This record gives sequence, C-alpha cells and structure tokens, in this order.
Amino acid sequence: MIYFDNAATTQVYPDVLKTYTEVATKIWGNPSSLHNLGSQASRVLEASRKQIADLLGKKSSEIFFTSGGTEGDNWVIKGLAFERARLGKHIIVSSIEHPAVKESALWLKTQGFEIDLAPVTKEGFLDLAKMAELIRPDTILISVMAANNEIGSIQPIKAISDLLADKPTISLHVDAVQAIGKMPLSDFLTDRVDFATFSGHKFHSVRGVGFIYAKEGKKISPLLTGGGQESDKRSTTENVAGIAATAKALRLALNQFEAGQSRLLAMKQVIADELSQYSDVVIFSQKSNFLPNILTFGIKNIRGEVTVHAFEKHQIYISTTSACSSKAGKAAGTLIAMGVSQKIAQTAVRISLDEENDMSEVEQFLTIFKQVYAQTQKVR
Amino acid sequence: MIYFDNAATTQVYPDVLKTYTEVATKIWGNPSSLHNLGSQASRVLEASRKQIADLLGKKSSEIFFTSGGTEGDNWVIKGLAFERARLGKHIIVSSIEHPAVKESALWLKTQGFEIDLAPVTKEGFLDLAKMAELIRPDTILISVMAANNEIGSIQPIKAISDLLADKPTISLHVDAVQAIGKMPLSDFLTDRVDFATFSGHKFHSVRGVGFIYAKEGKKISPLLTGGGQESDKRSTTENVAGIAATAKALRLALNQFEAGQSRLLAMKQVIADELSQYSDVVIFSQKSNFLPNILTFGIKNIRGEVTVHAFEKHQIYISTTSACSSKAGKAAGTLIAMGVSQKIAQTAVRISLDEENDMSEVEQFLTIFKQVYAQTQKVR
Repeated sequence: MIYFDNAATTQVYPDVLKTYTEVATKIWGNPSSLHNLGSQASRVLEASRKQIADLLGKKSSEIFFTSGGTEGDNWVIKGLAFERARLGKHIIVSSIEHPAVKESALWLKTQGFEIDLAPVTKEGFLDLAKMAELIRPDTILISVMAANNEIGSIQPIKAISDLLADKPTISLHVDAVQAIGKMPLSDFLTDRVDFATFSGHKFHSVRGVGFIYAKEGKKISPLLTGGGQESDKRSTTENVAGIAATAKALRLALNQFEAGQSRLLAMKQVIADELSQYSDVVIFSQKSNFLPNILTFGIKNIRGEVTVHAFEKHQIYISTTSACSSKAGKAAGTLIAMGVSQKIAQTAVRISLDEENDMSEVEQFLTIFKQVYAQTQKVR
Repeated sequence: MIYFDNAATTQVYPDVLKTYTEVATKIWGNPSSLHNLGSQASRVLEASRKQIADLLGKKSSEIFFTSGGTEGDNWVIKGLAFERARLGKHIIVSSIEHPAVKESALWLKTQGFEIDLAPVTKEGFLDLAKMAELIRPDTILISVMAANNEIGSIQPIKAISDLLADKPTISLHVDAVQAIGKMPLSDFLTDRVDFATFSGHKFHSVRGVGFIYAKEGKKISPLLTGGGQESDKRSTTENVAGIAATAKALRLALNQFEAGQSRLLAMKQVIADELSQYSDVVIFSQKSNFLPNILTFGIKNIRGEVTVHAFEKHQIYISTTSACSSKAGKAAGTLIAMGVSQKIAQTAVRISLDEENDMSEVEQFLTIFKQVYAQTQKVR
C-alpha cells in the first residue's frame, strides 16, 4: 500500500497512540473533579497545554483545545463575529479557504454580517492589493489560510500582517491546519496573527482533537457554552488522553520538520519533473511558495475520481483535491477561484506526501502512472 | 481506591479501549476519501451509527455524532433557535438543567431570544403545571433533562410529552446524558421527544465522543459548518475510532441495564439507610423517582469540598454535586433552584455509583463516613 493522501488524514503514530491509551487507562479522572483523580488529570492537561504553547512560542493561556480544525475555524469566525458585532459586521475571507472557514463566514450572512471573498491570482495566491481594497472601517476580521489544502499554495501571511500593522481593530485569523510541521512557524504565526487553528489528525495524532491559538487579550464568544472549562471559553469535559497524544504528536512533527522538509521536497520534485514530461498532464502546484508535500495535477479529459480509482486498483491512495468535497463530487473550489475552467478543474487529483513516505514509493507511483496514462489514451 | 464519582466520568472499559485502538490502527482512513481506505472507514462509521440507532430503537438517519454532551446540548438549543427564529423566539428550559443547556439558552438572549426557566418542586422535580403556564404561542423549544446530574431526580418526560401532544410547533429536547443506561429508554425517549443528547464517557466510552438523536424531519441549523459531513449537519473529519468505541460501550451499558439496576439500587439503599441514622446529615436524593446510582447529601455546617477532601484521604472519591461547577466553588444550582438555602446547599456532596462498584466498597465507605462524621463533630 502506498498512502499519498496525508492531507486528508494521517495514520496515528504508534507512540502517540501509546500515550493516548496510557492516559486513558491511568489518568482518567475528570479534570474538573476536586479530588486527586481530578487534579492528576488536570496536571496532564495543563502540561500538554504548556508543551504545545512552548512548541509554538506562545503562552499556555493562549492555547485552547477543540474537537478539531472545523470546530477551531467555526469558533474563531463565529465567536469573533458575535463578540464584536457592535463594532462592525464586515468580514473578509480568502476565496480559497477551507469550507470550515468559508461556510462559517457565509453562515454569518444569515445573522446580518457582510462577507467579502478576497480573490486569488491564477497561481493560487491571495491577491494582496485586491484584498486591501476590500477593507472597510467596519471590517472586524480577515481570515486567510497559511497554506491551501487543495493545491498547497502558501499564502502571504507576513505581507498581510504588514498590511494590517496599522489596523488594530481588524483581527487576523490563520487556518494553519495544513501548514503546521510543513512550513516554518514564523512564516504563518507572526506577531500580528490574533488567532490560528490547528488539527491533530493532520500530524499523526488521534482524530477529534485540535487547538486554537488566541492571542492574549483577544476575545471571542464561546461556541460551546456550559460547565466553564478552558477558562470558561470552551465548555465540555476535556479529552485529556487525546490532548496528551496531540501534544506528543506536535513535538514529533516539529522535531522532524527540518530534515523532513528536504526529503518531502525531493520526492515531490521527482514526481513533478516526471509528470511534466507527459503532454496531457496539467500541474496545478507550482514550484515556489508551495508546500513541500502537496502536488496537484490532472490528466486532460479524465475526471479526478477516475484517476483516483485507477490508482486505487494498485493500492495507491490519492485524492480528488480535498477529502471533504470529494464525495459531493464538487470540482476543487480553489481551482475554480483561480480561474481554472470547470472542465479542467474536474480532472484534478492531489498527492499529499508525508515523512513516512519514501523514494521507492515515489518510483512505484510513477511506474503505475505510466500505465494509467497509457490506459486513458483513447479518451484523452 | 473507591471511585464513587461516576456521574463526573467513568473509566473506559478495557474492551472499549481495545475497539478504539484497533480501529485507530487499522481503519484510519478519512471516511470522506473516495478510495478504499475511505470506504472502509465509512463502513465502520455507518455500522456504528446503525448499532446505536438500533439500541435506541431509532433510525440511523436520526443519529448524529458530536464531541460530547456539551456540544450536543449547544447544537440542539442554538441550532433550533437559529433554524426557527422566524417562527418564534421563546424558549423554556427547566431551572435545573446542566449548564450546557442552561448557558446555551441564556446565551441566546444576546441574540434576541426570550428564555424562561421552569421552576422545580422542593424535591427537585419539574413543576409541570407551572411550566405549562409559561408556554406561549411563540414558544419554539422546551428542554428538560431526563435525570438531574446533581441529585439524580428523574424528570416527568412522559407527562411533558402528553402536555405537548397537541402543540406540534414546540420542539422537545431531552438531555439524556445521566439517564442512559440507568433508566428504561421508554421513560425518556418517548415518541414526542424531538431531540436527545448523549455523551460516551458517562458510560465507559472514550472522552470526546457523543451523539444526538434528532427525529426525522426535525431541522436544526448546524453548529459546525464546513466540509459537509454527517449529512451536512455537523462538519468535521469523523472520529471513527471513538465512534466505534462508543457504539460498543452503549451496547455494554444497555445489556447490563436490567441486572445493574437492582444492584445499584441495593447499594444506594444501604448507604441512604445508614446515613439517615446520623442526625446532622441531610439527604437530598429521595427514594422514588430518583436514579438508582446517585445519592446526594450534606453534613450540617460542613462545606462539600471539606467532605470531599476528608474522603479523598482514604482514597474514596466523591464529588461536590457536579464536576463542572466544583472548581468554581459554586453551590449546587439544582439545590438552590429547589429552594434549599445557600448555607445548606454548600454542604452537598454527590455519590454516583456504577456497575463496577460493589457492596464491600459501600461498607468501606460507611466505615470511613463514621470517622469523617466524628471528626467534624466540633464544627457541626
């Protein structure tokens, strides 16, 4: 089996699962309980929070746990909107955001907010000048992802940070779900960033755990109200085992970042170089300013799902740009926003590599690619 | 160690954790992925959903997964409010609801909704007649828990169902987090109930997984918008391992319900009979219409946390009525709503038993109780 769909989800690392089962077995008290079992659980919870904060260069009090990237994005977008509605009801999100951001923003239209989708260039990068033109006195939030999930384009968070340097009333949110462990932290977690979203299962943690960074002093309305956990900002009994596992997974992901980068890039480059030899292949992920692990391409006239299933027969797993939209059969929203025609966008498939992959898998993939390409010759 | 704080959280059953780790290791694809690994995960997800639906006597299409009881309560309360705001903005919740319900309803006041808290009797039961008086033409939702988490009083869901038989525009939500596995399903999951909330870790599943029942045709606005999972009603990559574990835990909990009931009741009865011999003990949980596993009492003039810590020294773990409120040092909201004075409410502690407890633990508890009672004589 060759798993090249790591942007959809990753396999839990055995060591991370071991941490999960150990905590679930031994430290299973409710952190809110007054007794020893509660305090033990509370200590593991806070140690995990501190570990994550330290890894990100932030304070423990700025890290809040969630059930994943979607909750994090929903919480920041909706929570900030409800918190600051009296100061303004205008929000800008890029036109290539993950649905967790985009749909949350669009939902706010039902609550009287105005949403602008900032356009991207034909290469898949936010058009900074056009976004600047969208800013209004009542703009309360700008949300731009660190790196795109469908094609891997890295967004200009530093430039956006500079643009917003003299606009303190606008909060800046960065969806960092695909970026963490794949890009230098300083490229997307600038001092100007007020909120950032992370998801554990994208870096080999268990499913159902994520966290947000919320800069000290920056308020958002809770999405989950109740028992008052997470400093009364996110109620629910804490998933201590999942949180401890996620802290460990983050440490592993960031530890291997330096070495991993060049390996990923080398593998991606071999695939890109080879695929570009085929006349009917369109490559959507460019060389510069793209994540080292994502390569999105299409075979002319061949729908993405056909390509996915052709590789699946050989136990090679790739994706139609994003897992979330694949079942709905939607063409990649990012490509459409880039101005790619519906017909060409529908051919797109995404390879997403991981530290666990190696060059021999790349070679096998390319051998099979040759076969798949030959098989589709008649219909191209 | 004697763990009598099972209403706060339960220890994961080893078999349930085994299911979790097996699925996390072997079936780790993203259910939304088009390839085999995705379909495998999707099959486990849907099999778990069907198992839960079958156990509850409901349809698979009526079960939606969440990150726990708090998300379920928030989703139903806020989601229904947003969905039906045009039809009415009045909501009734009982005055003894868990904060996940009560705070969600009160938050809706910031969005222009009117909330009435229906009073309870001095024994801790919803006052049905008084609740009926609160119903208005613009009432869209009534939320009453199946059984109270602080004292265990069972609420009259059947009678509420009858009352609402001719009021189809009012949705009925039941927070069943404490009830499931401890009461007959038919006592709280009547045909009139439109929504119910459940949480896995209260019945020996892993933390961070719950589900709601939403009757066919009853719509609520999503709380988590995004990739369109759960029939576009609750986006986020599904926690398949946690969901499979929860389906298993529910089966175990319901299988042992009949036998467990009488054992729990017998243990509770022995404790209640003995405690009632002490002149300075007030018992808040009555005999009839109370859960078989919860017994809440107080020692005159002794604050609940003092009693909790006195037992903790002997490795006996009990609670100050609810884990959520215990750290905040708040007196039990349920007792205050029953008209108990602040001074007496502050003495309350909760014993919550479980199928894993046995009579020898009850005897040890009573031996230690005698010591604790004697130690506190001076200050009573």
